[in-house]
Amino acid sequence: MPQPATPPSPFDAVPAGAAAAAAAGAPRPEPTERFAARTAGMTASEIRALFAVASRPEVVSLAGGMPNLAALPLDALAAEVADLVAREGQVALQYGSAQGVPALREQICEVMALEGIRADPDDVVVTVGSQMALDLVTRIYCDPGDVVLAEGPSYVGALGSFAAYQARVVHVAMDEHGLVPDLLRDALGSLAAEGITPKFLYTIPNFHNPAGVTLAVERRAEVLEICASYGVAVVEDNPYGLLGFSGRTYPALRSLSRDVVYLGSFSKTFASGLRVGWALVPPAVRDRLVLAAESASLCPPSFTQMLVSRYLAAHDWRAQIKTYTEVYRDRRDAMLEALATYMPEGCTWNVPDGGFYVWLGVPEGVDTKAMLPRAVTARVAYASGTGFYADGFGSRQLRLSYCYPTPERITEGVRRLAGVLGAELDVMRTFGSSARPALGGGPQAPSPHTP
Amino acid sequence: MPQPATPPSPFDAVPAGAAAAAAAGAPRPEPTERFAARTAGMTASEIRALFAVASRPEVVSLAGGMPNLAALPLDALAAEVADLVAREGQVALQYGSAQGVPALREQICEVMALEGIRADPDDVVVTVGSQMALDLVTRIYCDPGDVVLAEGPSYVGALGSFAAYQARVVHVAMDEHGLVPDLLRDALGSLAAEGITPKFLYTIPNFHNPAGVTLAVERRAEVLEICASYGVAVVEDNPYGLLGFSGRTYPALRSLSRDVVYLGSFSKTFASGLRVGWALVPPAVRDRLVLAAESASLCPPSFTQMLVSRYLAAHDWRAQIKTYTEVYRDRRDAMLEALATYMPEGCTWNVPDGGFYVWLGVPEGVDTKAMLPRAVTARVAYASGTGFYADGFGSRQLRLSYCYPTPERITEGVRRLAGVLGAELDVMRTFGSSARPALGGGPQAPSPHTP
Repeated sequence: MPQPATPPSPFDAVPAGAAAAAAAGAPRPEPTERFAARTAGMTASEIRALFAVASRPEVVSLAGGMPNLAALPLDALAAEVADLVAREGQVALQYGSAQGVPALREQICEVMALEGIRADPDDVVVTVGSQMALDLVTRIYCDPGDVVLAEGPSYVGALGSFAAYQARVVHVAMDEHGLVPDLLRDALGSLAAEGITPKFLYTIPNFHNPAGVTLAVERRAEVLEICASYGVAVVEDNPYGLLGFSGRTYPALRSLSRDVVYLGSFSKTFASGLRVGWALVPPAVRDRLVLAAESASLCPPSFTQMLVSRYLAAHDWRAQIKTYTEVYRDRRDAMLEALATYMPEGCTWNVPDGGFYVWLGVPEGVDTKAMLPRAVTARVAYASGTGFYADGFGSRQLRLSYCYPTPERITEGVRRLAGVLGAELDVMRTFGSSARPALGGGPQAPSPHTP
Repeated sequence: MPQPATPPSPFDAVPAGAAAAAAAGAPRPEPTERFAARTAGMTASEIRALFAVASRPEVVSLAGGMPNLAALPLDALAAEVADLVAREGQVALQYGSAQGVPALREQICEVMALEGIRADPDDVVVTVGSQMALDLVTRIYCDPGDVVLAEGPSYVGALGSFAAYQARVVHVAMDEHGLVPDLLRDALGSLAAEGITPKFLYTIPNFHNPAGVTLAVERRAEVLEICASYGVAVVEDNPYGLLGFSGRTYPALRSLSRDVVYLGSFSKTFASGLRVGWALVPPAVRDRLVLAAESASLCPPSFTQMLVSRYLAAHDWRAQIKTYTEVYRDRRDAMLEALATYMPEGCTWNVPDGGFYVWLGVPEGVDTKAMLPRAVTARVAYASGTGFYADGFGSRQLRLSYCYPTPERITEGVRRLAGVLGAELDVMRTFGSSARPALGGGPQAPSPHTP
């Protein structure tokens, strides 16, 4: 860019505001022209763009993934946090370790033990939600142009982090039992033929966001083995693992291999507004991750960590999780019943066995992204499928969340959505579209096949 | 890297732990071999490495920058936070906006008004400490190899973020009135001659960390003008601006130009353990910054933001800041008195007019990094100057923090440090080092020259 041939002469007094306009003769770049290349990949997620309209009270939002906190014992928590400030305020309100509060890291290991993980608290790094763990793991693994494997569809926030570090996402499809090992093997083989080794596989094995499926137990070791044979790390994101409706938990991938990078969160099992998540990583990764965390935020808030630690120590958190799952199961049931009642022929959906989401397929010819404004006009919001793919797919899918609205609202929202879909199909029929809905439909994908 | 010629055959059952060892025949890379190039720049700061030893009770730590929270009204805060959970728990414990809680953003504008800033809450982005703001600003501005200007010395956490994004730091020296405009102009001219335009100047105008100096008011517009004329953005980091001992505040660079990216924090004016900071940015930068924040942590904790918001609304936060400054002024006085009493000839130091730090120059021949273990053995810790430069300078300087220890401990710590320095000088004299201390010494750098 152009530079002045000689530096401008100094001046002794400048009125406020004049400095900005001082170099009037020299061409000044717009701030955005000087941004890093990575900003080109930073685009507002469709879901975020939707939040403003979807949050109007008359709209039934089936779009967001906000957990339902109505079941939290607020009075007990209020007493707990007051005691924390009064007795331990000098520590809770002070800087802490970049790796996180030691007592909490021990308790996190107890939480992970529920899914078969044996871990050393020294290998746990507490982060500002598991989103930060994901961002930092990407930071230490990915150079621009590196390839990351992810299920297709995948978590929109993960795709955002991968884009921020200019990584290229290659999707691997799922079936009703989760990630398909043969397709993973095919993807790795094709990439190897191009001389490409992905940096890691990013996977959400339990109650997938957005697909709602769970990786079958008998596939788990195979997925690890395939990745290991190609020298590809595995990043296991497991925010929903303890929210299974059948009352059972699945063995974490990390329980099968200590090489797995495991991401966990209290956002869905306790409270999302505290932003307490974590990564459990191999020792060789830990030191870099702590350094990355330090440059990202110095340290996570001591205050929120100590509150979570007290909550885990003093309250029956397992019972609280059971309460949460009962709430979510009732809402899932309401959604499934409404889908069966209202959805037009040609729609398909899965039956999630836990977590927050139903993944809905719509008849050919319907574009869920294009339909969204019409749905919001009809006072229902969803997340269109395209947001969950890095490659433009997903226009015939959408994600429905049953976590936040009441069962009555869910039923009404699905009814409204069915009306919008029906109208779309009517238009297609009227205007002679070739895209008539296929016959069949209804629920697919039973709960994960397990031995 | 080597790839298996054919994918390994699938297997049906793998005992736990076996997957990791499955590809025994294929060479497997160490996890660290596959890290991103940026990890090469991630090294533990000298200060962090020191924290473990320096935190032993028998060691007087003049190393850390932990604020003193003893003056906080913990009982009142306990009541406030209990009420927050009991009455607003459903919001405080829930996900929030990536940009931050709107009410807090309005209050942040009131805080900034104390330094002459007129801002729109829409241009404020709340972050997890101002460290996260710094990290995200670097993320959106810096490609690998980009140049960033910073004072020499500069904040160690900023150097860490610049390294994490593979930016190259060019230091610009300060004198007792802060950054020297002529040297800034020289640096920009030299870089321009190489065809390089730095992405931004990172500057801490008030009560500098670590140098303790303040940018003279009459230099402020000139610094902005020089940067503007070269098309270089200005990032103003101002965590200490309200902690001036003379009772006056200085006009923020942002008060002189709306193009400045301003970083603020409640870590020093309220409580560091809440990790609430912010960036005030031009509208063209804001949208990218919010997107970057979203991929970094989805949103900052609602809980800590709402607590800060309530604190600002219900408590006399200006009086609290005044209390803090009185505490720090007393400690600064204790340190200056001890330095004058104990330091050997040839040492120089500044007289900070606010903030947390004294920057100590030692006689030629003394290496502050090499001396540090001997100081810790003598039960005093400091931060050696090398940590505050990206280019290896700083071995004849060290940073002393007076923020956390009591005045008595400060006096004792300085006495111990003087003993260590004296012993170093004795050894140099005994072994005939040419590096005899220069004559003179004592306090330098009066409080910033202001009209």
